[in-house]
Amino acid sequence: MSEKIFSYHSLFDFTKSVFLKIGCTHAHSETATQTLLSADLRGIDSHGVARLSGYVRLWEVKRVNANPQIKIIHETPSTAVVDGDSGLGLVVAPFAMNIAIEKSKSVGTGWVSVQNSNHFGIAAHHAMMALKHDMIGLSMTNASPLVAPTFSIDKMLGTNPICVAAPAGNEPAFVADLATTTAANGKLEILQRKNADTPLGWVQDKDGNATTDANILKKGGALLPLGGDREHGSHKGYALGAIVDIFSALLSGANYAPWVPPFPAYVPIPAQQPGKGIGHFLGAMRIDAFRPADEFKQHMDNWIKGFRNAKPIAGQEKVLVPGDPEREFEVERRKNGIPLLQQVVDDLNELAAKFQLSPIE
Amino acid sequence: MSEKIFSYHSLFDFTKSVFLKIGCTHAHSETATQTLLSADLRGIDSHGVARLSGYVRLWEVKRVNANPQIKIIHETPSTAVVDGDSGLGLVVAPFAMNIAIEKSKSVGTGWVSVQNSNHFGIAAHHAMMALKHDMIGLSMTNASPLVAPTFSIDKMLGTNPICVAAPAGNEPAFVADLATTTAANGKLEILQRKNADTPLGWVQDKDGNATTDANILKKGGALLPLGGDREHGSHKGYALGAIVDIFSALLSGANYAPWVPPFPAYVPIPAQQPGKGIGHFLGAMRIDAFRPADEFKQHMDNWIKGFRNAKPIAGQEKVLVPGDPEREFEVERRKNGIPLLQQVVDDLNELAAKFQLSPIE
Repeated sequence: MSEKIFSYHSLFDFTKSVFLKIGCTHAHSETATQTLLSADLRGIDSHGVARLSGYVRLWEVKRVNANPQIKIIHETPSTAVVDGDSGLGLVVAPFAMNIAIEKSKSVGTGWVSVQNSNHFGIAAHHAMMALKHDMIGLSMTNASPLVAPTFSIDKMLGTNPICVAAPAGNEPAFVADLATTTAANGKLEILQRKNADTPLGWVQDKDGNATTDANILKKGGALLPLGGDREHGSHKGYALGAIVDIFSALLSGANYAPWVPPFPAYVPIPAQQPGKGIGHFLGAMRIDAFRPADEFKQHMDNWIKGFRNAKPIAGQEKVLVPGDPEREFEVERRKNGIPLLQQVVDDLNELAAKFQLSPIE
Repeated sequence: MSEKIFSYHSLFDFTKSVFLKIGCTHAHSETATQTLLSADLRGIDSHGVARLSGYVRLWEVKRVNANPQIKIIHETPSTAVVDGDSGLGLVVAPFAMNIAIEKSKSVGTGWVSVQNSNHFGIAAHHAMMALKHDMIGLSMTNASPLVAPTFSIDKMLGTNPICVAAPAGNEPAFVADLATTTAANGKLEILQRKNADTPLGWVQDKDGNATTDANILKKGGALLPLGGDREHGSHKGYALGAIVDIFSALLSGANYAPWVPPFPAYVPIPAQQPGKGIGHFLGAMRIDAFRPADEFKQHMDNWIKGFRNAKPIAGQEKVLVPGDPEREFEVERRKNGIPLLQQVVDDLNELAAKFQLSPIE
């Protein structure tokens, strides 16, 4: 597949221009672009500019409000519920995370559940906002139903990711960002392009049978919770996805379970709507609400070095620490640019034409 | 294997007597017994009275302090660090959970990280303490290293469980309690007794090769993180276990990673001790710090019914909600008694002889 390389700055300028064109403020366009492109930088290509036209289509069908009045609708010293006013999750989630951080400064921790939002990009971007404040950051979101719980044919949960970011001292931060499924949808898309099969345990067909068909979601199939099947702990992945749903949507008043609005603008919203939009959950814990931050970070360094020095299995170079692969992507791509598939470039240039912007090249 | 049935009350009286004999106060003996037996009631036989003699042996080698001065060593309005003074985790964790609940009453949420503790029984017991206060409860603990991270031969993490309990209205509460491994050690023990193999993806041998040998831990092997192997998401199970370690031990000052003290009293404590004892993390979030509790519980009922009504795969009776199997065990065992294997009965009666107590029959 042919690829072109673009600098972060050129993609930033282009993406920001598109958000400005749909009516976002300068500040929101900047935030949305930072959030979206953090995925491309970190190698999560499925969640970056490849989705920009998807967000625009949601705006076109009036499911995204480009100029939202994001506000706190309930709060206590350590908690808040935020109404995203149908804004871009790319903007709503950082707004909510900043509230979590402020509350954490004041009472030790801050926890914000969000209703009436849209897809928020990669979870890591929001959790990592806490790092520079010497806080642990946490972020989760629910998503439209692609996942069948253990023993179920029906798709009841999204890929519902969880991210926890914890600062270290001399070592880079610990950043664990994981979909609560065996494999995220982006992994299936890669296999589809290669015309390859999935391993067993990633997906099931419309009757709940095991399959290796990477295109099975288009045929009524489902992604499987982390674990794959009951014997391998899929009830645990299912439980984790459920926890994300409860924290993100049941606490905030967003839609949940099979009623979460789908990302593709052409897929109709479920008739029954128990809540508003998509839900997120953001948290921040000040390290020195527990122990001195320097002490914690020294021990994090020791922890991280312990894992890096663990003896690898024959044929494996080393044991990784969560966040290592994404950080290596970021270093490389900030330096050498971000590769985009030709179909993504074409997609962006369709946006350029639509909004009278210069094409990217 | 022969089994005998005992009433909850007879096991309660016996267990409490043992804790009194080792010098626990009446209040601590009562709490420790409640915690320990909650495992037997909920069908987690590996974590109940079957472990009583193990706790006694830890007391005998002076690794458990029967009369601990458990105290808060640091706090903010929403956080605390508790020093368990080498007490039974069965007592220290409920102490810490009560602090989390009190802080939640006052500022919306409470989060307590614990150092210098011991094994705390089942995570669900502590998280569920929040339910009657209309709070979401969370509990985690680290544990001695039995688990090899993805690509590692070395065992670097414990089975590090996570529990989240959330109240519902007419439906029973949601209770997800999961080890962050494909299978917990208790599952291996069941297979060992049956002389059966494990499925692939549960364990690896001392060189990191896939194996189905249920006795492999005694031969230098390791449990595998949830996911089993990299292709099936073991890096996610590893990340989850790591998060538990960071929250439980890096925040509190407990031991972490391969340095967590082992449960069997005869296994020496690692020479390097970066912290004190075992670590836990307990949390409580008041529902009405987010939205009215009645509203939340109505939606939880709707959520739960949605999952119960999901279409099951052919051959499966129904889709379960996290906590269903354990709750069904509890109803049945409170009514009909708790079955113990003869070897567990013998073990308890050895304790009876040691402490001049009447044997259980």
